[in-house]
Parts: sequence; C-alpha cells; structure tokens
Amino acid sequence: MALIVQKFGGSSVADAEKIHLAARRAIAAKEKGNQVCVVVSAMGDTTDHLIEVARKVCENPPKREMDQLLATGEQVTIALMAMAIHAQGHEAISFTGGQIGLVTDNSFSKARIQSINQKRIFDQLSAGKIVIIAGFQGVTAEGDYTTLGRGGSNATLVAIGAVLKADVCENYTDVDGIFTADPRIVKNARKIDRISYDEMLELAGLGASVLQTRAVEFAKKYNVPIHVRNSQNETEGTWIVAETPKMEHIVVSGAALKKELVRVTVKHVPDHPGVAAKIFGDIAAANIVVDDIIQNVMDDNTANISFTVEHGDLHEIKPVVDRLVKELGGKTAAIYQDGLAKVSAVGVGMKVHTGVAQRMFKALADGKINIQNITTSEIKISCIISKEDANRALQIVHDAFNLGAGK
Amino acid sequence: MALIVQKFGGSSVADAEKIHLAARRAIAAKEKGNQVCVVVSAMGDTTDHLIEVARKVCENPPKREMDQLLATGEQVTIALMAMAIHAQGHEAISFTGGQIGLVTDNSFSKARIQSINQKRIFDQLSAGKIVIIAGFQGVTAEGDYTTLGRGGSNATLVAIGAVLKADVCENYTDVDGIFTADPRIVKNARKIDRISYDEMLELAGLGASVLQTRAVEFAKKYNVPIHVRNSQNETEGTWIVAETPKMEHIVVSGAALKKELVRVTVKHVPDHPGVAAKIFGDIAAANIVVDDIIQNVMDDNTANISFTVEHGDLHEIKPVVDRLVKELGGKTAAIYQDGLAKVSAVGVGMKVHTGVAQRMFKALADGKINIQNITTSEIKISCIISKEDANRALQIVHDAFNLGAGK
Repeated sequence: MALIVQKFGGSSVADAEKIHLAARRAIAAKEKGNQVCVVVSAMGDTTDHLIEVARKVCENPPKREMDQLLATGEQVTIALMAMAIHAQGHEAISFTGGQIGLVTDNSFSKARIQSINQKRIFDQLSAGKIVIIAGFQGVTAEGDYTTLGRGGSNATLVAIGAVLKADVCENYTDVDGIFTADPRIVKNARKIDRISYDEMLELAGLGASVLQTRAVEFAKKYNVPIHVRNSQNETEGTWIVAETPKMEHIVVSGAALKKELVRVTVKHVPDHPGVAAKIFGDIAAANIVVDDIIQNVMDDNTANISFTVEHGDLHEIKPVVDRLVKELGGKTAAIYQDGLAKVSAVGVGMKVHTGVAQRMFKALADGKINIQNITTSEIKISCIISKEDANRALQIVHDAFNLGAGK
Repeated sequence: MALIVQKFGGSSVADAEKIHLAARRAIAAKEKGNQVCVVVSAMGDTTDHLIEVARKVCENPPKREMDQLLATGEQVTIALMAMAIHAQGHEAISFTGGQIGLVTDNSFSKARIQSINQKRIFDQLSAGKIVIIAGFQGVTAEGDYTTLGRGGSNATLVAIGAVLKADVCENYTDVDGIFTADPRIVKNARKIDRISYDEMLELAGLGASVLQTRAVEFAKKYNVPIHVRNSQNETEGTWIVAETPKMEHIVVSGAALKKELVRVTVKHVPDHPGVAAKIFGDIAAANIVVDDIIQNVMDDNTANISFTVEHGDLHEIKPVVDRLVKELGGKTAAIYQDGLAKVSAVGVGMKVHTGVAQRMFKALADGKINIQNITTSEIKISCIISKEDANRALQIVHDAFNLGAGK
C-alpha cells in the first residue's frame, strides 16, 4: 500500500463534470489499495474573478482581507470534490488549510509554510477516507487566512507529500509532462521521462511554467518524487526525482526560453565596496526580480553592471534605477534595452561533460543569431538574444543537443 | 460611548455599491464615537447559488461538506466589507465564525451556538477598528465549519450582542421595521415603535418573517435590545425590548397571517396515556413542525386529535400519520384538510384586558368568516380559517383592534 498525494489545478476542476473526473481518478488510486490525499485549486478562473470583485470595492485592498477573500476559492472546491466522491459511492472529507493546521508566516499574499499537523490527515486516511485539502492557503498562528502566492497549490502538494512521507506527489495538469522545450514552439519537443530536482529548478526559473521553483525546492529538500501528468489521459508523465549517476549520461535534458526581457545597464558605477549591494538592495526593496547579473570593471576604474528584468517590470524599475543613478552622480548613467529574450540549455550532465557551451554558441552562430550576454551555472547555459530570434534560437538549441531524438 | 452591533442581510450587501452603503453606515456610527461590530450575510442569492452548484455535483451532499461550502458565502462578504471600509478611509478587520471562536454543536446545517471568544473582538474594538463578523456560521470544537440554519445571521447578531453586552443590535433589512400586519396585505398597517420580546416571538412564530424566533429568544434571554430598521433610509425602526408595564396599555400590538396550512385530524384515538406522546414523538422524529394542537374527548371514550402543518410538509407527514393510524387500529382514521390559513392577534395587554377574544371572533363573524379552530396563549389568539378568506381576515382583525390608528 502506497500513500499518494494528487493535485488538481484550476482547469482540472473548472466545472461539476471536471470535478467528477478528478474524483474518479482519486477513487481509482484508492481502489488500487493506496491511501489517497487530494490537493485542489480554486475552480477555473475563480481567483481572478474574486480579485476583480475586490478591486471594484477597493483600489488597494489590505492584503489580510484579500487573503481572507481568496481562500474561499479553494474552500468551495474541496467541499464539491468531497461531494463528488460521495456521489460516486466513496468516503471523503475536506479540510481547509487551517483545519489541518497548515501554519504559515504572516506574509499575506506570499506566505511560507511553517508546519502542518499531519495527525488529522492520518486519522482520516486510516479510517479509509480520501482526504481533500485546499491548496494555496494556510493560516497564521493567530488563525488569519494566508495565501501562498503564485503556484501556491503546488507548494501545498509537495508540503503535504513531505509531511506524510508520501510515495509520490501526482501533479495533474493539462499537458503530458515536462518537455525538452515548449512544444508550442518546438514541434519535435519530446516529453521527458525523468528529470532531477536541480534541472527542474533551472527550467522552472527559466520559463517552464508547469511547476514553480518553490515547489521543486521543497520536493528536493524532502526528497519527494513528483509525477507531472495529464488529467485527461492515462499516459505516464514526467518524474521529478533526486539525481542519479545515470542521469549524467544525458548532457542536456531540456531547453527553455524566456521572452520579453529588458536589459538594464548601469554604466560607470564607482568601483568601491557596497555599491552593487546598494543597487540590488534598492531593487529588491521594490520587490522586483532581476536575473543575469553581469559586472565588468572598466579602464577608468568604474564598473558596468547589467542585469535583466521582465518587460512588465520596466515601469517599476525605471524610477528606482534613475534615482540610484542620480545619487551615484558623476559619469554614471543607465541604459534600458528592450526587446530581448533568453534561450537556455539545462542538464546535470554539464557537470562532467565538456564542450557543451561551445556547442551551443556555435549552433547559434551558425544560425546567425547574435549572443548579447552569456550567464552560466553548474548545470545551465543561458544566452541573451534579440526577441525576434527567440523561437528560432530555441529550436536551434533543441536540435544542437539532439533533444527531439530521445535517450 | 456605546457599543453597537449592526447586521446587514444578503439584500443589503448584494453588490459592491450596496456593500459601500453598508460600510458608510458602520462608519457613521463609529464617527459618532461608538464602538462598532458588523455582522453580514452572504451577498444576495449566493447561498442559493452554492446550493444549486452542490446539487449538480451530488444529489444528497454530506451535511458537513455542505456547511464547508456554504460558509464561504459570508467569508466573501466580510472581506469585501472590510475592504470597503478601508476604501472609505477607516480601519476594519474581518473575522470568520472560527476566527472569533464562535463554537457550535455538531449539528451541521442547523447548529446551535455554544460559546464565543469575545477577547479577539474587544482587542480590535479597543484598537479603534470596526470589526466585521461572518453571520450564519461557526465551527465545531474540532474546527469543522457549521451553519446556523434559516435566520442564522440574526442568531449571530444577537449572540454577538449578548457576549459583548452591546447597547443595541441594529438589524438592517429592506423594510422600515415590524408592522402591525403585513403591509403588502393590509394597506393601513403601521410601523410598531416598540414591541416586547414575547410579542415578537409570537409574531415571528405566526408568520412575520423579519426576525426568527431563535434570535428573539436569545435577545430576550440576555436582554439585548434589537432595533429593526431599513438600510435604505434613516428612519427609526422598531425596537424589540423587554416588556414594560406601560406596554400593557396596548391590548393588541399586531396581527399576523400564515397561509397554506393543512389541518390533520386523527379521529377516534384510544383515550389512554401515552398515545398523544407517541403520535407527536413520531412526527418530531420525522423533523416536521406542528402547531395548533387540539384534543377533544368524544362520547365513545376516544379522542380526536388535530393539529396544523405547513402545506409543504404534507407529503412528509402523511406517511407518518397513516402508519400511526394503522398501528393504533380500531376506528382510528386520519383526515387531511388542505387550503387553510391562520389569522392571529398578539399583544401583552391581553394578560390584563378582557374581551379581546370576543372582539376578534365578533369581527370575523361580522365579516362572514367561518372560524374552524381556535388556539390561544397568554398573549395571542389564533383562528384557523379558509385560505380564501385569509387576506380579508387579516384586515378585519387589524381594523377590529384599531391597529392602523397608532397609539
């Protein structure tokens, strides 16, 4: 007997019929002799709808009240899911985050899970029930509702999997799994059967949208296997698991693309200690995520610091950087270069194989694609390129490592 | 400084605009120097809509899950109400039933309040905030959501008023207060300024729908004045208060009408101890409310027992009574008389004034209305009549006691 935690996202529980389909899947797993927990999101676009209603009432709603409001979305789904299982002749019980003691910090709208009281879950599993849990939400120590931010239901899935020491977390989505590249762009993209936590972390950070970084980090920390699969069929999906020596045979596991980037370059920054910290501290205080940081020291003893932000954040970062430039004075100036993209190759095999970067640069050069910046980590290589070349570059990188051909 | 608890029903918080109107009322009370608590219902027909969705998923949903579902309705309203107050520049904080420790028994769908932890409310009131509380809901000792049944938000209003020792509970509705009779039927019906708990209890039981019996019982027990008033204007409404000697000068305070009644008569019931208890025990077990019980002993040493039920309960009570008749055997038989109504006069003055019943009977006789049954209590007289005469009878009783003329 295994313990399985399943998670169904908003599109998989969008209406009564889909809730019944998800319920059937949970029951099927139960009937195979497993203990089954189900984590659900709010139905369809419920969360967006609630946000819209809130904005009608208040332009800038207090975050605590926003979470109080949004938490109702998942509460509706858990109740309906338990009813659907009941209607199909099986026993289920639903729990909000608070009802299983899923306690978070006080960061409303982006709270972090601190603890879960697994006793109530185990009691119900032992009684033979399917346990339905509201994703995306928790409570503070004082009992205030919190929400876990983007991808929060996946965080709940993995956290529940971790505390229950589940055999697998099944993440049901509307795609067959994780692909070697976005199949909407790269026609010969192939579903990946197994991928390591670290590779998935890189891919998630680089634009693969199925799983968020946080959920994968959690799964890695507690070594919970995640099985990403399609709620519409029975196909085996992608297993996200701990790295095995065998994985190193595959040099590159996947390619990723992030479009709509802006590169911000701050030129002639006085090259003395604390300046970079000041720059990125101010940006972080404004809650803007930056990536691909590069610093070059110039001849005149100043530095050029460049980094990328998403295009959507440009209007927020510009005033921050312009103010910084003013403060730093002298020859310091900021340049904003819009219309960029980032193509990346990811694979644990890079740790032991050489020549990977060269192969990627050569392929892009052969395709007449100009590389504007390069950043690397132990298991990924990213190139900043023009947005116009983005889709073609992804296909080129995908082909360069022969990702469409399988193992 | 007074402590005021206000309650806004579903129609008073049906959309963003109405929520803002209600918020303004709470703020107005606050600005007059009062401490203000607000109890709200689910928006408009939200509860009905949620029930409909549930029925689509499961024909006979588990009651625990139904309450888990329905509790979201009020949670949405409290968050939006707090946001609306915030948008108008004041501070508010919202609480679900669970968040203020409103603990009930385990009777899902018709739970009874057992305790409320007033500390969290007082802390926030002391901090100068308007406190918004979800009506209609509580939690069990285990933390499961419960709902309080029909009129549950009024029960919350009065319970909160009681534990906070509020100076007044303001019940905002879409009418100006309690009337001497239903103004849709009796054109010269007059708003009552003050009425005793006992009179209100009788009127509520007899068909006046603004306040439910349970809420009034609670208010009486803890001596909390209720002010029923219109959320659309500033008119003084009706105060429901403890009886004062002065009230006895008014013989009859109001007239009420209940339509669509069925009289069930069980004839030739063996006249020995325990039979009536058996009959009403079986009916109560089937959860059917009966009223106007009359028993006559006949010449043949058997009894006729009659009582009324609402027409909607006929299909439920018939099998119960038919089975009882079969069990009792002999000459026992059941007669179901449909198409009845009940007109009543209520007033604490009846305790000290004589001739009230006679005046009512004479007025109905003058109006050629046949009285089929009479039941009385210390402060009310009810007559069962034909449904066809119902509206006319209400007007006749109203006129007989000169209720339209005022004090």
